[in-house]
Amino acid sequence: MFRHTQRLQFEAKPDQPDPLYAKKLQELVGGAWGEMTVAMQYMFQGWNCRAPGKYKDMILDIGTEELGHVEMLATMIARLLEGAPSETTAGMVDNDPVLGAIVGGMDPQQAIVGGGGALPVDSDGTPWNGKYIVASGNLLADFRVNVAAESQGRLQTARLYRMTDDPGVKEMLKFNLARDTMHQLQWLSAIEQLQEDGLEGTIAPNALLDEENQQHNSTLWGLSDGTTADQGKWASGTAPDGQHEFSYLDQPDPLGDLASAPPPDPYLYATSE
Amino acid sequence: MFRHTQRLQFEAKPDQPDPLYAKKLQELVGGAWGEMTVAMQYMFQGWNCRAPGKYKDMILDIGTEELGHVEMLATMIARLLEGAPSETTAGMVDNDPVLGAIVGGMDPQQAIVGGGGALPVDSDGTPWNGKYIVASGNLLADFRVNVAAESQGRLQTARLYRMTDDPGVKEMLKFNLARDTMHQLQWLSAIEQLQEDGLEGTIAPNALLDEENQQHNSTLWGLSDGTTADQGKWASGTAPDGQHEFSYLDQPDPLGDLASAPPPDPYLYATSE
Amino acid sequence: MFRHTQRLQFEAKPDQPDPLYAKKLQELVGGAWGEMTVAMQYMFQGWNCRAPGKYKDMILDIGTEELGHVEMLATMIARLLEGAPSETTAGMVDNDPVLGAIVGGMDPQQAIVGGGGALPVDSDGTPWNGKYIVASGNLLADFRVNVAAESQGRLQTARLYRMTDDPGVKEMLKFNLARDTMHQLQWLSAIEQLQEDGLEGTIAPNALLDEENQQHNSTLWGLSDGTTADQGKWASGTAPDGQHEFSYLDQPDPLGDLASAPPPDPYLYATSE
Amino acid sequence: MFRHTQRLQFEAKPDQPDPLYAKKLQELVGGAWGEMTVAMQYMFQGWNCRAPGKYKDMILDIGTEELGHVEMLATMIARLLEGAPSETTAGMVDNDPVLGAIVGGMDPQQAIVGGGGALPVDSDGTPWNGKYIVASGNLLADFRVNVAAESQGRLQTARLYRMTDDPGVKEMLKFNLARDTMHQLQWLSAIEQLQEDGLEGTIAPNALLDEENQQHNSTLWGLSDGTTADQGKWASGTAPDGQHEFSYLDQPDPLGDLASAPPPDPYLYATSE
Amino acid sequence: MFRHTQRLQFEAKPDQPDPLYAKKLQELVGGAWGEMTVAMQYMFQGWNCRAPGKYKDMILDIGTEELGHVEMLATMIARLLEGAPSETTAGMVDNDPVLGAIVGGMDPQQAIVGGGGALPVDSDGTPWNGKYIVASGNLLADFRVNVAAESQGRLQTARLYRMTDDPGVKEMLKFNLARDTMHQLQWLSAIEQLQEDGLEGTIAPNALLDEENQQHNSTLWGLSDGTTADQGKWASGTAPDGQHEFSYLDQPDPLGDLASAPPPDPYLYATSE
Amino acid sequence: MFRHTQRLQFEAKPDQPDPLYAKKLQELVGGAWGEMTVAMQYMFQGWNCRAPGKYKDMILDIGTEELGHVEMLATMIARLLEGAPSETTAGMVDNDPVLGAIVGGMDPQQAIVGGGGALPVDSDGTPWNGKYIVASGNLLADFRVNVAAESQGRLQTARLYRMTDDPGVKEMLKFNLARDTMHQLQWLSAIEQLQEDGLEGTIAPNALLDEENQQHNSTLWGLSDGTTADQGKWASGTAPDGQHEFSYLDQPDPLGDLASAPPPDPYLYATSE
Ligand SMILES: [Ca+2]
Ligand SMILES: [Ca+2]
Ligand SMILES: [Ca+2]
Ligand SMILES: [Ca+2]
Ligand SMILES: [Ca+2]
Ligand SMILES: [Ca+2]
Repeated sequence: MFRHTQRLQFEAKPDQPDPLYAKKLQELVGGAWGEMTVAMQYMFQGWNCRAPGKYKDMILDIGTEELGHVEMLATMIARLLEGAPSETTAGMVDNDPVLGAIVGGMDPQQAIVGGGGALPVDSDGTPWNGKYIVASGNLLADFRVNVAAESQGRLQTARLYRMTDDPGVKEMLKFNLARDTMHQLQWLSAIEQLQEDGLEGTIAPNALLDEENQQHNSTLWGLSDGTTADQGKWASGTAPDGQHEFSYLDQPDPLGDLASAPPPDPYLYATSE
Repeated sequence: MFRHTQRLQFEAKPDQPDPLYAKKLQELVGGAWGEMTVAMQYMFQGWNCRAPGKYKDMILDIGTEELGHVEMLATMIARLLEGAPSETTAGMVDNDPVLGAIVGGMDPQQAIVGGGGALPVDSDGTPWNGKYIVASGNLLADFRVNVAAESQGRLQTARLYRMTDDPGVKEMLKFNLARDTMHQLQWLSAIEQLQEDGLEGTIAPNALLDEENQQHNSTLWGLSDGTTADQGKWASGTAPDGQHEFSYLDQPDPLGDLASAPPPDPYLYATSE
Repeated sequence: MFRHTQRLQFEAKPDQPDPLYAKKLQELVGGAWGEMTVAMQYMFQGWNCRAPGKYKDMILDIGTEELGHVEMLATMIARLLEGAPSETTAGMVDNDPVLGAIVGGMDPQQAIVGGGGALPVDSDGTPWNGKYIVASGNLLADFRVNVAAESQGRLQTARLYRMTDDPGVKEMLKFNLARDTMHQLQWLSAIEQLQEDGLEGTIAPNALLDEENQQHNSTLWGLSDGTTADQGKWASGTAPDGQHEFSYLDQPDPLGDLASAPPPDPYLYATSE
Repeated sequence: MFRHTQRLQFEAKPDQPDPLYAKKLQELVGGAWGEMTVAMQYMFQGWNCRAPGKYKDMILDIGTEELGHVEMLATMIARLLEGAPSETTAGMVDNDPVLGAIVGGMDPQQAIVGGGGALPVDSDGTPWNGKYIVASGNLLADFRVNVAAESQGRLQTARLYRMTDDPGVKEMLKFNLARDTMHQLQWLSAIEQLQEDGLEGTIAPNALLDEENQQHNSTLWGLSDGTTADQGKWASGTAPDGQHEFSYLDQPDPLGDLASAPPPDPYLYATSE
Repeated sequence: MFRHTQRLQFEAKPDQPDPLYAKKLQELVGGAWGEMTVAMQYMFQGWNCRAPGKYKDMILDIGTEELGHVEMLATMIARLLEGAPSETTAGMVDNDPVLGAIVGGMDPQQAIVGGGGALPVDSDGTPWNGKYIVASGNLLADFRVNVAAESQGRLQTARLYRMTDDPGVKEMLKFNLARDTMHQLQWLSAIEQLQEDGLEGTIAPNALLDEENQQHNSTLWGLSDGTTADQGKWASGTAPDGQHEFSYLDQPDPLGDLASAPPPDPYLYATSE
Repeated sequence: MFRHTQRLQFEAKPDQPDPLYAKKLQELVGGAWGEMTVAMQYMFQGWNCRAPGKYKDMILDIGTEELGHVEMLATMIARLLEGAPSETTAGMVDNDPVLGAIVGGMDPQQAIVGGGGALPVDSDGTPWNGKYIVASGNLLADFRVNVAAESQGRLQTARLYRMTDDPGVKEMLKFNLARDTMHQLQWLSAIEQLQEDGLEGTIAPNALLDEENQQHNSTLWGLSDGTTADQGKWASGTAPDGQHEFSYLDQPDPLGDLASAPPPDPYLYATSE
């Protein structure tokens, strides 16, 4: 069960409105790697967690925090939209190209649908959806998604940081950047912990390692014609699990027969000779 | 530019048809973590790669391989659907509950839409979409997504491996498991290479580390009431970057003021007092 | 079965083209609360209606009208796009910032895909989809959705009315506003009729009222820390059904045990201790 | 900012697993009218609320509660999936039609993707998305959506209540039914409060009532050939706002001219004579 | 503007309910090639039509008919769902595998969401969306989509015809098959008419034929290793426009330089050397 | 299995960057009729092809080529984005309306998400999805979709050709136009081949022609009130299959009875009298 305080985790006050930026900031609310994603992802992972104790507790701590980030960004967006020129007409644009540029670049739905507030969509107006998240029950596989999410999230935040010079916005983004740094470290550390606790290894999942095809689990298939792919650590030497030796196959032949689809039921009316 | 051979990378012949399994296997074709995802993701990453040389070459090698995996799985699905009971009617089901169970559990679109072939959808029939992939230009952020994708992919393959006892299907899945093992190792190794080459560090992106809020980049906010979150490596000691010291804040107060949305343009007709 | 006349229900002629406004108006065609939504929603409700007679007849009257609204708005959009600067190039924009603002703010798909016509999408370009509508068979539940749809629709129309000063557009929107007023009244009245006819009560559905948990059907759980939630009619006194007495629980304790997920099948490879 | 307790708002323990029901229950988690919808909808409405005081406080109370409902249902689903036959193969199905029926009717993604846990999707596997919710800033328009949501939600819960005879599941659903009853009453009461406080009237929004086309704001257009649509309260007498008189137009003529689309830019290559 | 009669274009009465088939038939209502698609597609094409006269008139005739097909199929689905076992519980399934197969294979949303009625979704539960249709303004391009839609539609109908032995259902499908035959012929004929009227030629659009690269508009690039692609009419001889001569290039070299992406703005933090 | 060369099929070098155009060009990458669509469509058709030999070989030739078109366009987009003003702030826009127009009209996700590269989305930012393609197994039905796809694709390319004056971009588009011309001819020719080979006829599928309702397979139902629909070839004379005689029914009566939905299970709580 959740409780809520109306105070924000961190301040979210721009020095002045900026409707163009309010559109861009939607990426951090409802984008594939935005705060709705990490909030929902960590909560579903916490609820599905089968390793009670410190893992579950930590996942739910961070999931609860991320929900507050959605709130913080939604509040910032509403404030950036204060006084946005919603009633601008064609005549006004003709006389004022700067106004025209602003109106042209705004997200019309923030006005028409959201009444000057944030929406659960990204910076192109695409709605957030449940396929952005995963909670597989396997913590190594999931924590790797989490490291990735905090990395893409911090990258987008850094890009957005460069697109504004509003001190209030920058102050909030400095907090977001810091939390994304912490969260990358936290998930990297949690992966180490899983391995130290003997719960998971290098390969996810830690299963079927003996059953899988041993001939094909350490070779890089060279199928593009770049000439330097074999110069990386991934093409020779010992792999990061300390157990496999990488090798590079240059333009190898296929191993299978001709692909073909058998005739289906005749009443499916596939064309066949 | 691409070239194609009609031979499969690896054999994909089931010992016998199994329409229920043909539905499940769609997850590896058109699911969020399926082969269409990794194929498209690696290709867009390769095309967007700004680090020419070994990175770009390697990314395009693996992207090209993954396309062949889509083909291999699509072929397997068509073969599993051979002879699927497409003309089964209500009367036949009444007399044969096993047939009924099969018909009830099949993906109707594989027959009605695909004519007994694979579809670009997942095991629940949800179509693949472009939001499943990312190519950000930042290789650390992207390679972390790639490690995650190969981990979720191998996990799903392992689960599917347990849901069949068909020797031909298992043979192919052993190859897929092996490639997923290799690809996890390959991306983990590529991350090490990025760091050894001095191109990226522990935090993605390697920027704004001094500008971000230093007070908040190493503390875990304890916002759920589990009591053991502070017992992991993520809550104390040195972080994986060797530079931050983790600490744990138990039920900390919010730092911001009351959240509030300012009045929008009056012609947006928000209710206000 | 339907018949069609090529005359519009109401006139839809702008005084002059306005491609920026043509984008915004898409919200009323293909938005979540646009005319495609009410047209499809009322038609599916009419077809699924199990209360033959006046309810079904009325629903199909209004559903048929709404289809004509889609046509009216699609026609208006095509007319607003007449002469839109589709061949504008970078050089032209450089020399004419007003033109640039217009080109930047237009919906590129109205030209590239629609050839200067309306699209089944909203003002951010998101396609209309079938999840926007509901036809549950329960008329109270559905009529409440209908009241809501006409309210959101009139709100969006009012906002759009303020974003233009074209007399022809405003004339059409005055008609639309009027129909939305009528349709709000119509569905409110239909809810009264359902209740007068003894078909439905205050709660939807009119069932399981005795079986539901009686302790928890009239209390407001105070889970946010605002201090005034108990000052509304919803927190004390008699509820709108005349049968329940509202009360307010300030920061109540949870009633359930610890949430936990049991171990799944081991071959799903969830991490567990 | 949010806080979380690991205790559930109400108990969620089935007497025994039931994987078929676990699929159906997804509707209440990630369906268009499920708990994710009301949780997100009320939170965005609370954040966007411009009427500080009791309205905002109440909205955030209920939004915070609904998040706990997502948790409660996700927990129930994981428990219903305990021991689900994930490794069932074709051979096993052939010998056991009951098992076959169960396997055929299960949601394969709950195993393959969720590892035996809940997913942010509905009972057909369609992912939740942000277009399910609205927060317009106009409280009358939004509270009407909320009444509708709690009505559809209670209706679906009632239907699901009839599809199980598990005492533990029924106990939880009795709580859900009760909360949906309360929430319908709460929003109905909040609409009365808005009107008593003079903030909104009968029509949403309370604006442009004089500017709209007065000839067309109280007539029902009879466009289907049912003969009894004029027998309801919606076709004659005083409307619910006490100000309009309803009337019925039987098969009225259209008011507009012929619909036509003007020629677009010639370089859009529309076919024209 | 539209008018509606409550009589169906053709009868839609099954001899008996069949909930499994009711799920499959959703493909023809809300599938990518179902009746909602052709209805909406033809209506948008009619509204966007710039060739007034016989083309526009004919398009609107058929679009109006298709709407009636949606109604006919939605009615059939509701009738097939009569008496569907909505309250079936786990216990009942255990004792009756045929019932279990039926319950497992039904679309749960038809009961939970639609209350025993049709939904605007396909046979896998994916909602219909606006991207299924096109109205480009170019009639040749659009009529070719229409021929394709009626072909896929008739194919799916033929497959569904084989999946039932209910005389009432088959009677309706015989009508649908006939209309699809007519509509294929109608659009093929309309393409001939366009060409006879000199409005369009063989290539869509009839423009830029001289400006396009003349070296590359009649050669088949052989990029797969099948050996017989040059044995079709498409690889030699005169093309269907009577103007180009086909030729076949076996494994041709690429014409462009190395693909590469230039460095973006440094503040986008792409990894580069 | 596939192989890849890093050389492009054709050159893709703009003379100078143009971020506004980079957004529009997304339509050809990830739009409904873009290169991802034809690439994936032809590959799935090739894999599902049951007519081995020249048809399958040809389909896979062209599918493989289209993949290279995705690459070519993605490369062009990255080059058009070189130097795009990603760090533009509100202050800069205020002083430079041309810059403002550019920033307002750019796709923000190309910077924030793609780091200055192409995305798998269309020109409105909607992600590509698997429902854009079809591979039904019936080659006549599928080749008709292919003709349509190449027609819509060439039409969009022609429109985009008019929206730029950059010689490098135009050079690439001249190649694309030429390939679309060839591909239209190729599929038209393949349809002729299917018919010459006796594999398919005029109607898809070539089945149930005797069983379908013979009264209704050649009449045009006049349901809109335009007066000239009967003046086309589609309304009289011999149909394109040489076997049916067209006729025109002016405002015909419906053939079916009243539409009605039967009562569902009472526990679905549909409103009924
Ligand atoms: Ca965050
Ligand atoms: Ca793979
Ligand atoms: Ca309307
Ligand atoms: Ca609830
Ligand atoms: Ca039809
Ligand atoms: Ca192409």
